[in-house]
Amino acid sequence: MREWNRLGLNKAERMERGAALAQGKVVPPARIGELLAQVIESGDRVCIEGNNQKQADFLASALAGLDPAVVNDLHIVQSVLALPSHLDVFETGVASRLDFSFSGQQSARLARLLSAGQLRIGAIHTYLELFGRYFTDLTPRVSLVCAAAADAQGNLYTGGNTEDTPVIVEATAFRRGIVIAQVNEIVDHVPRVDIPGDWVDFVVQSPRPHYIEPLFTRDPAQISEIQVLMAMMAIKGIYAEYGVKRLNHGIGFDTAAIELLLPTYAESLGLRGKIATHWALNPHPALIPAIEAGFVESVHSFGSELGMEEYIRARPDVFFTGPDGSMRSNRALSQTAGLYACDMFIGSTLQIDLQGNSSTATLGRVSGFGGAPNMGSDARGRRHGTETWLRAGREAGTGTMPRGRKLVVQMVETFREHMAPAFVEKLDAWELAETAGLDLPPVMIYGDDVTHILTEEGIANLLLCQNEQEREQAIRGVAGYTPVGLARDKAMVENLRDRGVIRRPADLGVDPRDATRDLLAARSMKDLVHASGGLYDPPARFRSW
Amino acid sequence: MREWNRLGLNKAERMERGAALAQGKVVPPARIGELLAQVIESGDRVCIEGNNQKQADFLASALAGLDPAVVNDLHIVQSVLALPSHLDVFETGVASRLDFSFSGQQSARLARLLSAGQLRIGAIHTYLELFGRYFTDLTPRVSLVCAAAADAQGNLYTGGNTEDTPVIVEATAFRRGIVIAQVNEIVDHVPRVDIPGDWVDFVVQSPRPHYIEPLFTRDPAQISEIQVLMAMMAIKGIYAEYGVKRLNHGIGFDTAAIELLLPTYAESLGLRGKIATHWALNPHPALIPAIEAGFVESVHSFGSELGMEEYIRARPDVFFTGPDGSMRSNRALSQTAGLYACDMFIGSTLQIDLQGNSSTATLGRVSGFGGAPNMGSDARGRRHGTETWLRAGREAGTGTMPRGRKLVVQMVETFREHMAPAFVEKLDAWELAETAGLDLPPVMIYGDDVTHILTEEGIANLLLCQNEQEREQAIRGVAGYTPVGLARDKAMVENLRDRGVIRRPADLGVDPRDATRDLLAARSMKDLVHASGGLYDPPARFRSW
Repeated sequence: MREWNRLGLNKAERMERGAALAQGKVVPPARIGELLAQVIESGDRVCIEGNNQKQADFLASALAGLDPAVVNDLHIVQSVLALPSHLDVFETGVASRLDFSFSGQQSARLARLLSAGQLRIGAIHTYLELFGRYFTDLTPRVSLVCAAAADAQGNLYTGGNTEDTPVIVEATAFRRGIVIAQVNEIVDHVPRVDIPGDWVDFVVQSPRPHYIEPLFTRDPAQISEIQVLMAMMAIKGIYAEYGVKRLNHGIGFDTAAIELLLPTYAESLGLRGKIATHWALNPHPALIPAIEAGFVESVHSFGSELGMEEYIRARPDVFFTGPDGSMRSNRALSQTAGLYACDMFIGSTLQIDLQGNSSTATLGRVSGFGGAPNMGSDARGRRHGTETWLRAGREAGTGTMPRGRKLVVQMVETFREHMAPAFVEKLDAWELAETAGLDLPPVMIYGDDVTHILTEEGIANLLLCQNEQEREQAIRGVAGYTPVGLARDKAMVENLRDRGVIRRPADLGVDPRDATRDLLAARSMKDLVHASGGLYDPPARFRSW
Repeated sequence: MREWNRLGLNKAERMERGAALAQGKVVPPARIGELLAQVIESGDRVCIEGNNQKQADFLASALAGLDPAVVNDLHIVQSVLALPSHLDVFETGVASRLDFSFSGQQSARLARLLSAGQLRIGAIHTYLELFGRYFTDLTPRVSLVCAAAADAQGNLYTGGNTEDTPVIVEATAFRRGIVIAQVNEIVDHVPRVDIPGDWVDFVVQSPRPHYIEPLFTRDPAQISEIQVLMAMMAIKGIYAEYGVKRLNHGIGFDTAAIELLLPTYAESLGLRGKIATHWALNPHPALIPAIEAGFVESVHSFGSELGMEEYIRARPDVFFTGPDGSMRSNRALSQTAGLYACDMFIGSTLQIDLQGNSSTATLGRVSGFGGAPNMGSDARGRRHGTETWLRAGREAGTGTMPRGRKLVVQMVETFREHMAPAFVEKLDAWELAETAGLDLPPVMIYGDDVTHILTEEGIANLLLCQNEQEREQAIRGVAGYTPVGLARDKAMVENLRDRGVIRRPADLGVDPRDATRDLLAARSMKDLVHASGGLYDPPARFRSW
């Protein structure tokens, strides 16, 4: 007779061991280490809620503090590695294996641990992909999540930064796993229930509010005039040209410049209501002036942004918020919107090769790409038409069967810091794959998904290229004075320009002399605060006044 | 001063009008029509929960019964049109516009209404795509959803068939929309909270339990020996060859035959534990013998299946279930797993053209494809490697940048019913697009996403084709005695066979004489019940004993 409830019986054993350390579901903070040691077993698959922004930092530290003689060989399945404690577990030997999406600031240390043999990496994922695996072959046995508040029944209030919590908890709770939540406070009644208490096994009040990172704030003071020029070209040559209404912006100053040019330059072109109306986007402070100018109809977010809470609360027609006034963000659903409901992804990159493959991977760092590969890829399962998507598809004109195409735009200055050329014959990703033992070179966006490359030299429309050779010359043609650019076939590039495959600022009617910072709807953090009517409250590090 | 809470103020007005008809959140069934007339306004975007299986039938009828003089011009955004009432709203004039995913049995009537000008179709979507739009430009203003039970606070218990409920409610509730749930019963305490009451405005007990359709049940008695042969070829030539562990099966007898051959034929090849371990799949009764034989490690489901409740409850190690024992299904997350965590999609189709484009669209029907385009497409945002995916990528060998590939297999007998050839020069989809005014021919799976075509004549591996001409001949080479098959270039097809691009049963070591129904692990519904230890309880229409 086969036992069909091994997971359930095993969970019951763990819960019995843990129950002695809790009052109902509530665990005293001082006993969290003991609790983890009782409910986690060696070899477990463990998910630490590591989001882009909010972090289950108290639980992550407690996990790192476990005795590896008692708990070891854990397999960590976690979307973002953001804190030192996220890697400490590998150094102490509590954990040995990792599947993740993005490592950001921990990427250099991760690379060192990897080459020292202190962990094995299963794979690097895009977010939505890792979430899909939570329901397939990477379901967590124990999840350590993070919320703003809980009640004694374990109902969780995640507040504005819901991020990954629902997807982690759902996968774990419904496969007989154990869900432990750290919360900033335990209250009698949560402002709204974001995660039902039935899905949560233990809650613990962390001694300090959870760590949160303002990841999406860009100070307008740092936007250069070259970025203003590129933003003008983007608006006139792509947004207006294709009538892009539904979109996602990557993080960075390039796209922040576009956001800040909507109420000025785009307004002057009569584009309000015609472009950039529906967004899958974190609440970027740089979008405030466009919202105030009536450009934006809706924003659905992956997470929130520190300091934007009161502004969001005061703009419920724009953001998805609950009856309590705080935002409901949900990375899985916003990534789905980014994949399937957006007509364009536009973002920056570090390196582009002659086939248009782009990557932000650099040597000595194993960082992953987060959501970019998902949003920056053509959704081949998409079936609904919009004018934007159909037009891009007509321009691509591949094969006998007509179809649409997502616009995937890579923005990059021809040289990045330290005069490193952004255009290269071969991506660093190849060498990184070699040294880190990856299956494939870590490409952020594959060349055949990229539709446009935008530099200060112009826009290369790769959709209109008829073969690989034209494509290479179109890329060289906007690569400026980089070696790749200098090696262009001048006649071919001129021909591509004549055909509108390459468009220079002049071809677009954009005068570089107009590209001044005066065009920015906000030129400083203070301007953003002002634009928000005082509702936006930037974190201290962004305040200089 | 711009008003930034128009949605909230408008909701408050609606709620005030509706409150008079309810006791708290509970609406008496007799007053549901009045309530809808009070809270729905003309021109609203309305989502009726129309799943594959469970239906908010009581609310759908009430909506269809509204006076079009009072409520009209509604825009229906609904995944499945399954019931007559789903189209009645267009006939009466209550609704005028439709965005949807799948119409199934209503597809012929839908086509008639369309040509009579009684509605306009925005677009036909795949499920995940429509869900993405719920958070972008198609957010419902009012959603009429369906659950098993509610308490007086509006907490919902969806039971096994969660399906679309969470995604619909989340999009509506957090954009100040109105959520109305019909439930089979109102109880003091729901067995588990699936949707928090904070997200639900009104509940109504329907006079009869909601309608539910057993969509995924296939009687093994109807599986033919040709289907057994094709299943053997699939298992030996694809599952074993690529070591496919994580997968999704389409609906139909072709894939049911594969499921029933796992514990017999696949077992005899020593494949237990090596293939078909992790599934994104509704709980197909045909999978019972494979589960009992220990083939299956986990199944995450889009919805449930009528009669499988007790079996699922008794197999919690395999299915995702809650503490109450019933399944947690969730279409959005299971589709995400199907897209990003599965290495293979295999399903049937009706027509395939010479480029490998396939479609189930036929003239006079506007049915849509549901989830197939999503699962049957290469996920270009995927970044994690598995042996299966990397091998398929190596075989495809496109370009200079290595990458993986999802296996997308189309299974089809060369002739379907009434001797209609499955292989055609031109898909009916072209003419359908013309007559129904669609933007593009409705292709289910595009040729460049298909990796293998499997017929009783053999397997064509399109990954290994080096150009369009080879691809066409590979398709002709498995098209048998259809006109497309007869027009093959014999020498080229033989060459493709020599190179392993086409593999006949003999090339695979499959003897058609072994392809008998005796190989099926269950040959009748009764056998399935027996295999389940009496836990599976088929609906009456599938019982002949």
